[in-house]
Amino acid sequence: MSGLIDRTTSNIAPLDGAAMQAARARQDRLTKPQGSLGHLEALSIQIAGITGLARPRIVQPVVITMAADHGIAQLGVSAYPPAVTAQMVANFLRGGAAINVLARHVGARVIVVDMGVAAELAPHPELVNRKVALGSRNFVNEPAMTPEQARQSVEAGIDLANREIERGADLLATGDMGIGNTTASSAIVAAITGQSVVEVTGRGAGIDDAGLGLKIALIEQSLARHRPDPADGLDVLAKVGGFEIGGLVGVIIGAAARRVPVVVDGFISGAAGLIACTIAPAVQPYLIAAHRSVERGHQAVFARLDLDPLFDLGMRLGEGTGAAFGISLCVAACKLLDEMATFGEAGVSERA
Amino acid sequence: MSGLIDRTTSNIAPLDGAAMQAARARQDRLTKPQGSLGHLEALSIQIAGITGLARPRIVQPVVITMAADHGIAQLGVSAYPPAVTAQMVANFLRGGAAINVLARHVGARVIVVDMGVAAELAPHPELVNRKVALGSRNFVNEPAMTPEQARQSVEAGIDLANREIERGADLLATGDMGIGNTTASSAIVAAITGQSVVEVTGRGAGIDDAGLGLKIALIEQSLARHRPDPADGLDVLAKVGGFEIGGLVGVIIGAAARRVPVVVDGFISGAAGLIACTIAPAVQPYLIAAHRSVERGHQAVFARLDLDPLFDLGMRLGEGTGAAFGISLCVAACKLLDEMATFGEAGVSERA
Repeated sequence: MSGLIDRTTSNIAPLDGAAMQAARARQDRLTKPQGSLGHLEALSIQIAGITGLARPRIVQPVVITMAADHGIAQLGVSAYPPAVTAQMVANFLRGGAAINVLARHVGARVIVVDMGVAAELAPHPELVNRKVALGSRNFVNEPAMTPEQARQSVEAGIDLANREIERGADLLATGDMGIGNTTASSAIVAAITGQSVVEVTGRGAGIDDAGLGLKIALIEQSLARHRPDPADGLDVLAKVGGFEIGGLVGVIIGAAARRVPVVVDGFISGAAGLIACTIAPAVQPYLIAAHRSVERGHQAVFARLDLDPLFDLGMRLGEGTGAAFGISLCVAACKLLDEMATFGEAGVSERA
Repeated sequence: MSGLIDRTTSNIAPLDGAAMQAARARQDRLTKPQGSLGHLEALSIQIAGITGLARPRIVQPVVITMAADHGIAQLGVSAYPPAVTAQMVANFLRGGAAINVLARHVGARVIVVDMGVAAELAPHPELVNRKVALGSRNFVNEPAMTPEQARQSVEAGIDLANREIERGADLLATGDMGIGNTTASSAIVAAITGQSVVEVTGRGAGIDDAGLGLKIALIEQSLARHRPDPADGLDVLAKVGGFEIGGLVGVIIGAAARRVPVVVDGFISGAAGLIACTIAPAVQPYLIAAHRSVERGHQAVFARLDLDPLFDLGMRLGEGTGAAFGISLCVAACKLLDEMATFGEAGVSERA
């Protein structure tokens, strides 16, 4: 590693213990039985530790939804044709996708990033162009990308995180779009966790049994051929990853380095989180796992990263849709910590 | 039964199958893999069936938080002194409680109702006075209330639901405040479901082992003495219930009769739901269970009512705090159904 990635990871500090202690003490004085807000109390304390503020507020959450195509998708591992990636980017830009609706609902901005869609997209004021290539290569035959492209995709994510934070973002959330990207993500999760491909591979957007069997066989074949180094996140990314996944790795690392909470969406974002923590283990406490996806490999991500998702609504859509509800919970957790009256302020009697 | 309760329950109709079919068909044309929004899809379809609208919108959600005192609280079944009920009502009216923060967060109004607080509360423009009595009686010695008071509390809830719906509310959510009310709720749940008191009794606001043992013994003793009829919801309410619980029964029945979705908060609201469905089984499809509370008896409520809660954040606060997040999910589910583009509109290719 060198350059931007190295400089960024070296800036990631532990959480602020004093801020966490102050937040914990305030939680225990608020007008409610201690602990009765459950995971929201722990969430507010984590955000205090991340931001270094005893009473943090989140007012400008931003969802970064990154899109790219995958060479492996040519082999029929998805229920949808590869052209859908570019079509969905257009849908994002018109505001008609699920992530648009949910980001509006929770008061977040959506940044749509072309990390490597396999089509030249028309310029659009709300489309960020960081295209590394016209899709990754089919990793059954050759590595998905060169080491230089892997680095470039991560650096683009770091750069975007910095840009959004400088524009005022105080929470970043990850999202993805890329036909074929559950295949890449399962390969990443198997490579890094050492779990079997069967255990971490699911139906993605809804492939049938035959497709699932093919998907598993292709991932096994690819891992056997490329032998990615499980301790080297960039190597795994280059061999079986994707450009949007690399971009999200950078967003996660960039957020942690700036002490900004990062809400991780579903399985693809989880694979990016796994790579990010392989590159820089200090990232872990900055991660907030939004939800448990239906995609079966997600559990391996949580186990490896020692994360508990906030909720499980049976979702499996990506785009940042799970993260959107996670944002709302983060905002609410901070408001509760900040706005609730204490027993003393409210004149409410404490425990008998 | 007679009068308002009878007239209201006779107005509860089955869900609108045509609206549900139209909503299901639209969900399947939206730009996402079918089923990928998980429980949010089912939720949107349920709300379509409740409202009779193929594309329902929720714009004026209202949380009705009902407060009352419980004679049983004099015996040390709660970690907090009974005076806290009135103190928390004052906290609600100043906007400093958790439900105030969360209702603001999700864009809901809170209606605070004195159903039977054991103190004369100063009039306040935002306090609704439906006081049945200065607290229920200690049900270890005698029934918690007279049959007439039970009826009066339910009728007050129906009346309030009607009033709020006439003022524009398009979703009602339940909330409670009452020191001692997990004791009443556990007694109700044991009486109606037939499960043992031990299985459905938890620590409420945080009582210790000795207090929990006392709580269980007192409930067992009270049920043995009064023998409430499990098939008669008003009898159970009168013998071991509470005035805020009776009020919430009325809110739930009133909402169903007006085809308005009702988001049920935690354990106390669940006990009210159980009584409501005992009085009028047709209520069940109108219920939306927000969350799974830490309070152990909640599971028996879900099992009996055949409900699955939307999320589990380890909360056990009441007031309507779990319901607040449930509201946000209902609003979001409807927005997704209504606002997302279809494959045709967006020019996105369907499954290969």
